[in-house]
Parts: sequence; structure tokens; C-alpha cells
Amino acid sequence: MYFFLFQRKIDHETMRIPMKLYLIVFVCAFIILVQYHIYNPWVIPNGINNNVNEVRQEVSERKLQVLCNNVTPDDGSDLPPLFIITPTYKRPEQLAELTRLSHTLMHVPNLTWLVIEDAYKRNDLIEELLSRSGLRYQYMVAPMPVEFKNKTRGPKPRGVSNRNKGLQWIRQNAKSGVFYFADDDNTYDLELFKQIRYTKRVSMFPVGLITKAGVSSPIVRNGVFSGFYDGWIGGRKFAVDMAGFAVSVEFLLLRPHAVMPFKPGFEEDGFLKSLSPFEPKQVELLATNCTKILVWHTQTKKNEPSLPIDMNKYNNSNLIMLKKILV
Amino acid sequence: MYFFLFQRKIDHETMRIPMKLYLIVFVCAFIILVQYHIYNPWVIPNGINNNVNEVRQEVSERKLQVLCNNVTPDDGSDLPPLFIITPTYKRPEQLAELTRLSHTLMHVPNLTWLVIEDAYKRNDLIEELLSRSGLRYQYMVAPMPVEFKNKTRGPKPRGVSNRNKGLQWIRQNAKSGVFYFADDDNTYDLELFKQIRYTKRVSMFPVGLITKAGVSSPIVRNGVFSGFYDGWIGGRKFAVDMAGFAVSVEFLLLRPHAVMPFKPGFEEDGFLKSLSPFEPKQVELLATNCTKILVWHTQTKKNEPSLPIDMNKYNNSNLIMLKKILV
Repeated sequence: MYFFLFQRKIDHETMRIPMKLYLIVFVCAFIILVQYHIYNPWVIPNGINNNVNEVRQEVSERKLQVLCNNVTPDDGSDLPPLFIITPTYKRPEQLAELTRLSHTLMHVPNLTWLVIEDAYKRNDLIEELLSRSGLRYQYMVAPMPVEFKNKTRGPKPRGVSNRNKGLQWIRQNAKSGVFYFADDDNTYDLELFKQIRYTKRVSMFPVGLITKAGVSSPIVRNGVFSGFYDGWIGGRKFAVDMAGFAVSVEFLLLRPHAVMPFKPGFEEDGFLKSLSPFEPKQVELLATNCTKILVWHTQTKKNEPSLPIDMNKYNNSNLIMLKKILV
Repeated sequence: MYFFLFQRKIDHETMRIPMKLYLIVFVCAFIILVQYHIYNPWVIPNGINNNVNEVRQEVSERKLQVLCNNVTPDDGSDLPPLFIITPTYKRPEQLAELTRLSHTLMHVPNLTWLVIEDAYKRNDLIEELLSRSGLRYQYMVAPMPVEFKNKTRGPKPRGVSNRNKGLQWIRQNAKSGVFYFADDDNTYDLELFKQIRYTKRVSMFPVGLITKAGVSSPIVRNGVFSGFYDGWIGGRKFAVDMAGFAVSVEFLLLRPHAVMPFKPGFEEDGFLKSLSPFEPKQVELLATNCTKILVWHTQTKKNEPSLPIDMNKYNNSNLIMLKKILV
């Protein structure tokens, strides 16, 4: 009797149970899908499978790093690219200078460092230094033309071959962004890189520690450019230091003949004049209307090449290894 | 007829369908649970609810930062603390030097920068520079005693008051870790800070760009200390440069009378001798048995104080503001 009741009860509900259960199954499937899609967009990088360990590793190595450094992504890829052109040459202080400058640039996002040496071949110690910095870089050589190298009197046009090589690289490899000539012995405030990045044509700013005046700067009155202040004007249309201006890549690309002349003392002026059409009054004034110093023309005291080491006396010692590094 | 067949078919399967479907429901619930628990431990920090936005914010602000900077936590609090003692004094290059050094130190975890100026009062521009760096720092003053300041011939014991003030601060505030005298014009490889951090007593390493020899270093033969190589030995027991050694804080604390003497040319030697009992052969040799240069004694070319600015001619211009910053 009970069995029949039970049987009847089931028979009675036969029409409803499957419908309800199908509904439950559908709801469950729906919940799984929804749950998956809530997590999916921010937990699981695209294109990898759902193996948890792989996901964990991928996330911790790649995605987390992108989300670090407070607001902007680690690589600053949302910022206009910066190209830093640094001429250099072999001397006892060279490795020190580049080490120090690399530490500054390592704080600047979305930057490419163009290090160009006045030499016929590249130096392994510098290649190693640049590689260890973790910076995006190009290490190139551009020797000074022999006619200038053999000059016996007067100043030589140092760094001109290097900087023109940098311009050539930018023309071939860059589409947008800003470039800046940054010598390896100068000192740069990190704020400088934040400001020059948005240069539309040519931006300018004061440079400390230049000549007896102690500073080289555009003169600004009521927020408007009104001339150049520099210890030496020398008839220059643009009386500025190499560290005192930055240029838009797009602006350069529209001037295919712009080049730095081999003319000591007139390198900056010649280059800025070659950006014609461009007038001093069009300069974008940075560093809070040129009232702050964000770059210093520091110069490092020259050291004589190191004396030879007595190879007999110091044979078998660490000094033999050290001598190989010294200039 | 079809309806009855259908009805009969359902009736026929009545006993099996609910069991199957219950099983499916159970499996679905199990999948949801498993899926939830796989994500849960590494996606959702403890103790917060499952609101997705909250979780996302919590993760991006807190957990991600901890996981950044490769392996060690952001603050490097698991590393032995490093105390960098930097004497400084007012001069045209001062802000530039400290800016540059701050960029290097900003790459070093768990570091306290003791900047001690030879002055009677603190300089707001330096306070601002240090504050902007984000470094943990102490900015103090320690003027050179008048007897030396008024000395008219021979070299003065520069930086001795400052360094002794640094030692005093360490005695009062530090329990462990390592300290290092780092002048503001020198250049430091980041590798140096990684190595000195584990100094047990006194560690030493080569310093580049010193005297005509080009380097100052312990002499190492078969991995063993065997004397000092320096352009000037001058009867010193420890013929080393100020940038060439680091000392354990615990080692210093056990020597309450250790102090740097006001004796130009013998500051390092005098201080290291005051760490007695301590002999040169006990030195810990860093920089791959003193075969690499991780610090350079760079010196910045001195600039004359800047000339006055013609206040009538440049009234109303940015130059008035700039002059306030210049030395």
C-alpha cells in the first residue's frame, strides 16, 4: 500500500520534477558562468589556460609588475616616449659618470637611452653597464671626423658626431615623443623628465652652474619669453646650453634637414636654427616659467690616466685584474 | 496517440530521471564550491567581503605592492639596515650633488640617509630635496670647530664633525646593520650596497679615481689580505680612502670610544685604529676579492659663487627668483 502511494506520488509529480530540476541545472550552469566571468577579466591574463599554477605565475610575474609603481604602469607605456641622447667618450671617469646617470634614468618611465660613444668600436664594460641597468638602450659609436680630431688649436666640436647619430636613429626608429641631449656628467632632477615629456615643439628651462653667471636661462617677463640670459651670448640667436632644451620628435621629423653643426660654441644655436621655421618666441617655458633649476651643468674633475702598476711587485695579486678596468 | 506514448515514456523513466538530475545538481554545486576555493586563497585577501570592487582595490593597493620589486618586500625590511653617513657643506654644486646621490640611494632598500651639513642652521632647499626623494633620512648640522675653521694654512679636517655626529646618531638610534661614509660627490655602483650590508666587522673594497695610481685598494693574494695599495701610504696602518670601507653597527657599539680624529689625511686611519681591537688582516674583502670597482672617488669641478644679477635690468623677470636659489 505504502509502495503504491509512493509510486503514485512520484507518478503524480512526474510532470513537475524534471522541469524544476532542469531549471536548477540551468541556474547552476548560469552561476558557474557568471562567477567565471566576474573573476576572469582581472585575474586571468588572456590566452593562457586555466591551470592554476600557470595563472599564478603569470599574474605574479607580469600583471602584478604592470600594476606596481603606484598609478602608472611599470613601463609607462601610456606616457609619450622619451629619447635621451648621451654622447660619451673614453676617459678615467667614463664608467662612473654613466653609472650615476643610469641611476637617475632608472627612475624615469618609458625612456630609451641612446648612448653614443666617440670611438671606432664599442666597449664591453659599457655594454655590460647598460645591460645591468635594465634600461631600454641603444649603444652606438660615432667617431669625431678625423679633420677635427687632428685639430691642434682651439676647442674641438665634441659630441657633435654622437648627437647627429642620435638624431639619425630617432628619424629611423621613432614616430612620436620627445628627445633631449643629456651629457653624462650633468645632473638632472627627476621633475625635468616629467615636464619635457609633453613638449610640442621646443621647450626650454634654466641650467644651473654655467659660466660666471651661475645659470643660463630664457628671460621670462609676465610669463612671456623676452630674451636669453647666458654668460656668453656671442651673437647667438638661441643663447642656450645643450642641457637647456628638449624637442618634439614629430617636430623634428617635419624638418628632415635639421642637423648639429661642427662649430664649437655654436652647436646648440646651429641646431636650433636648423629647426626653421622656429623662432625664440615660440619656445615653451618649463620649470615653473623658468624660476626653478631642474638641471645642472656639473663637470667632473678630470683624472690623468692611471700610472702603470709594477707587474713584478704585484704579480699574483688583485691589482693585475684592477688595472685591466682602469683607464 | 503521440501524447500517450510521450506520457508513457516519462512514466517509464520516472524512477531514473530524478536520480540523474539530483546527481547533476550535486555535481554542479560541487563544481561551484571547488572553483570558489581554488581562487579564494590567492585572489581574495583575508577578512574582507567578496564585493568585487573592494577586492580589486584591496589587491591592487596592498597585496600587489608587497609582491612587487621582484622577491623582497618593497621596504626591504627583511634585510640588515644600512646607514649612509653623508657630510655636506654649502657651495654652488651642493644641491646638484645631493640630487644625484639621492637618485642612487632611492634604488637601495632598507636604508637611512644621515645627511649632516657643516653649518649652524639647516637649509630649507636641502630639507625639501630630501623630503621629495621619499628616502628615510635625518638632516642634521654639525659645524666644524672654530679652531679649524679659522686655520689659515694647510688642509682643514673637512667632514669630521659631520661624520662624528653621524656616529653619535647611530649609537643613540641603531641596534644592528651596517654604516658607510658616502661623500656627496662620489659615485656608487648599486652592487656596493648589496655587498656591504652583510659586513660583520669592517669590510673593504677598491675605490677608483684616487691619486695618480687611479685606485686605492687592499692588496689581495690568493684570497688573503696582504697590505694596502694607495698613492699615499704616509705611515698609515690603514691606508684606505673614506669611501673604501663599511662597518658593522654592532661592532661599533662594542667600541664606545671609537671616533674620527680632526687630522687631515689621517681621518680614515685614525677612525679605523680607534676601532681597536681590530687588525688589517681581519678585514672582510668585498668586490669579488677586490677585483672590481664599485665606488669611484669622483670630484666635481668647483664653481665660483655666481655673480650678482643686475636687479634694475632684470627687475620683473624670472631671474630674480633664480638668484634666490643660486649660491
